[in-house]
Amino acid sequence: MNKVSSVIQRVQKLVEPSNEQRYLVENVYTNVKEVLSKELKRVFPDFDITLQGSVAKDTFLPDEVDLDVFVLFPETVSKEWFEKVFVNIVINTFKNYGPEILYAEHPYVRINMKGIEVDIVPAYRLRPGEKPRTAVDRTPLHTKYVIDHLAENQRKEVRLLKLFMKTLGIYGAEIKVKGFSGYLCELLVIAYGSFLEVLRAATKWRPFKICIDIEKHYTTYKDCLETFRNSPLVVVDPVDPLRNAASAVSLKSLARFMVAAFSFLEKPSENYFTSEQVENYVPEIVKNLGIASIIINIPRLSPDVLWGELQRVAKRFADELKYLGFEVIDVGIWSDEKKVAIIIAETIPQELPSIELHIGPPAWNFNHVKKFIEKNRGVIISGPWIRDDGKVVILRPRKIRKLKEAIERRLNLILIAPHINLESIKEICTDIECLEKYTRDYRDLMPWLKKHLKKRDKALLSMY
Amino acid sequence: MNKVSSVIQRVQKLVEPSNEQRYLVENVYTNVKEVLSKELKRVFPDFDITLQGSVAKDTFLPDEVDLDVFVLFPETVSKEWFEKVFVNIVINTFKNYGPEILYAEHPYVRINMKGIEVDIVPAYRLRPGEKPRTAVDRTPLHTKYVIDHLAENQRKEVRLLKLFMKTLGIYGAEIKVKGFSGYLCELLVIAYGSFLEVLRAATKWRPFKICIDIEKHYTTYKDCLETFRNSPLVVVDPVDPLRNAASAVSLKSLARFMVAAFSFLEKPSENYFTSEQVENYVPEIVKNLGIASIIINIPRLSPDVLWGELQRVAKRFADELKYLGFEVIDVGIWSDEKKVAIIIAETIPQELPSIELHIGPPAWNFNHVKKFIEKNRGVIISGPWIRDDGKVVILRPRKIRKLKEAIERRLNLILIAPHINLESIKEICTDIECLEKYTRDYRDLMPWLKKHLKKRDKALLSMY
Repeated sequence: MNKVSSVIQRVQKLVEPSNEQRYLVENVYTNVKEVLSKELKRVFPDFDITLQGSVAKDTFLPDEVDLDVFVLFPETVSKEWFEKVFVNIVINTFKNYGPEILYAEHPYVRINMKGIEVDIVPAYRLRPGEKPRTAVDRTPLHTKYVIDHLAENQRKEVRLLKLFMKTLGIYGAEIKVKGFSGYLCELLVIAYGSFLEVLRAATKWRPFKICIDIEKHYTTYKDCLETFRNSPLVVVDPVDPLRNAASAVSLKSLARFMVAAFSFLEKPSENYFTSEQVENYVPEIVKNLGIASIIINIPRLSPDVLWGELQRVAKRFADELKYLGFEVIDVGIWSDEKKVAIIIAETIPQELPSIELHIGPPAWNFNHVKKFIEKNRGVIISGPWIRDDGKVVILRPRKIRKLKEAIERRLNLILIAPHINLESIKEICTDIECLEKYTRDYRDLMPWLKKHLKKRDKALLSMY
Repeated sequence: MNKVSSVIQRVQKLVEPSNEQRYLVENVYTNVKEVLSKELKRVFPDFDITLQGSVAKDTFLPDEVDLDVFVLFPETVSKEWFEKVFVNIVINTFKNYGPEILYAEHPYVRINMKGIEVDIVPAYRLRPGEKPRTAVDRTPLHTKYVIDHLAENQRKEVRLLKLFMKTLGIYGAEIKVKGFSGYLCELLVIAYGSFLEVLRAATKWRPFKICIDIEKHYTTYKDCLETFRNSPLVVVDPVDPLRNAASAVSLKSLARFMVAAFSFLEKPSENYFTSEQVENYVPEIVKNLGIASIIINIPRLSPDVLWGELQRVAKRFADELKYLGFEVIDVGIWSDEKKVAIIIAETIPQELPSIELHIGPPAWNFNHVKKFIEKNRGVIISGPWIRDDGKVVILRPRKIRKLKEAIERRLNLILIAPHINLESIKEICTDIECLEKYTRDYRDLMPWLKKHLKKRDKALLSMY
């Protein structure tokens, strides 16, 4: 038996749910279905309670045993009815199971039964080819497609692929991750046959030039690529030719998956399926890097909204630091998703030089030149002189040299997200000690911080 | 009388040669012509000795009384005869006047008679429309054109324009200056009428969109611009429609002339015609700037060759420093044109940070990634990680942080000119004290150095 097979065999036990888990899940589903069915029938007779998601497809990982229970209605029912009547019925029915209302495109209910999270989601019955009315209506078609096309022995292949993705941190289509959804993992296994074949195929991909079209909805590769222009990876949704099932996958996630595939095939190891212990090690590097950080009080928001806003703010943060003259090495975001978020940008240098070149207008824009010189009168150290490109320039003392001041002065340009503003700022930190205070209150911050600062990407595991 | 007129009237005396100068010049020319004529006739009868240049056109400045004596021959004479026979006759004829051979496209002789420099240049008789055989053959046509088209009262206008250019340091078409030749100044006055009108016109120019076509060789402005694409300034040579008399003018020289014209018209002052005293002032700025300098032993070369090579080396110098991470503020070149040249690049900062971001290949170029990581193994501080653009990057200690080391390590890439190589290096200086040693041997170095470091451009005089 070769190295790859033996690694995969040893990893197999990590991805297989136990009999107890399977039994529990089935039991919970039967229970929910029965109780809910009885209550719903009193109000409205025409519905189907169905199981969706990875449990329905038997492709779930042992630590991913959440249930997606979809209640399908005919199109005569209105969306308002979902919101106003259905949600209340569900909440009342399961009031002893800590029901919570969550909002995607429309609200749904989450309960917790015997330690298992159950999402109860209303949707419209949809036949293949029909236009979905809500974002979740397509889900039953996905479930059916996977059940019909994934052979029983391929389920473990999906599980391996999911764990591989998960270990890399690219499992999930949510904005935080920008990675591979469970459905996408299933489609890849259907397309290529097995976990290993998916990896082998991935090493031959080229970003922006991949089009995986299982149902051959497109007659040519070119057609497909043109329909989904600017997508690093295209996997045509078998149940909807105009949808890219990989649209969430960022270039970075794709690149990381590809290189991890290569790296794993070259030197297979169980480490690709297990999270390493974070060493008890504060990287030396922080002594030589600027550690620009904003600690933000966040409101309770749906994770996609929250991470979308945090990512926008992080991008503005980096842009403003670059504008002032810092080289921004990397930006990281940590959040407990409840109370606090931390955005860190590492910079070179820690403090900017005392003078700066200030570039003015071309010499032949005389009135602009006059204004430029007038505005800087009194702070000109050298110049004004005229460069080869005809622009008037001066040397002047740099106003902002320290990271702390840089952040403070630019905060109003950085905080441009709807739910994050100047009042959200808890603190501005520019050294590691300042950040370490927060590691006391948020236990998973420290491991994240160390990993973030060390930046050793698992995708490259076999190469270093 | 308005301000401009009164300034011009006061400056007039600076640009008018004295009667003594005029008498001396005439006297020297008559003398040279007589003696040379007698000697040449013994060998070859068919020639004309003519006076060319600014003295012939009476547009010369008091400190520009050099004589250009052109000896015109029929085309039956060969270029070899110029080189082998003519030059020797001239040297023999004027052996008491310190004859020197100079090389343009072909050799000519320079003598010094009564303190006046006389260039004796062989050329072919050329009629308008005929193709020149050597670069200087066109000169007599230029002289004739100017004499025919420049009114007597416009000569002082040319002189004013020349002195204005000279004070700015943009008078001359040579590579060192990349500015306005005497002929170009004359054409501008012919085109616009007077010194002031030239300035007024210049404030309305737009670089790369100027086409001054006195003889209307082109039917449309567009035609003209297309013929001389990528020229910041086009002045069609009246005696050769395919030649741009302003082809030597760099964008920088043009921009400086334009803004100086605006600046002068706005606030006229005699200072535009006089070189200021350099203050006894070593700019404070050197404390905060890196002063990267190479002192070079140069061979005796024609100035255009020398300055061409020095400019190439200076550009490579700046490029290499930028490549290593320095911001290069400006580059200056000083030379006595005989023994030594100094190239100075001012940088921010004086010393680079201790770490650097090192960017590798895209993650999907697996073998390049492997090599990249292998090559850097042992020096990786953080990483390798994968950026949003898919590239693999690391942080590593910066190898070269100090200017001195930067220059030394890159010298072989910087010294790429035919006459300047590693053996030409006299010293590498990275502080002002090191440079000041040379100011003892080269008296005009210090004023140049101070002016260069202060960088206050006279073209912007009225604005600060």
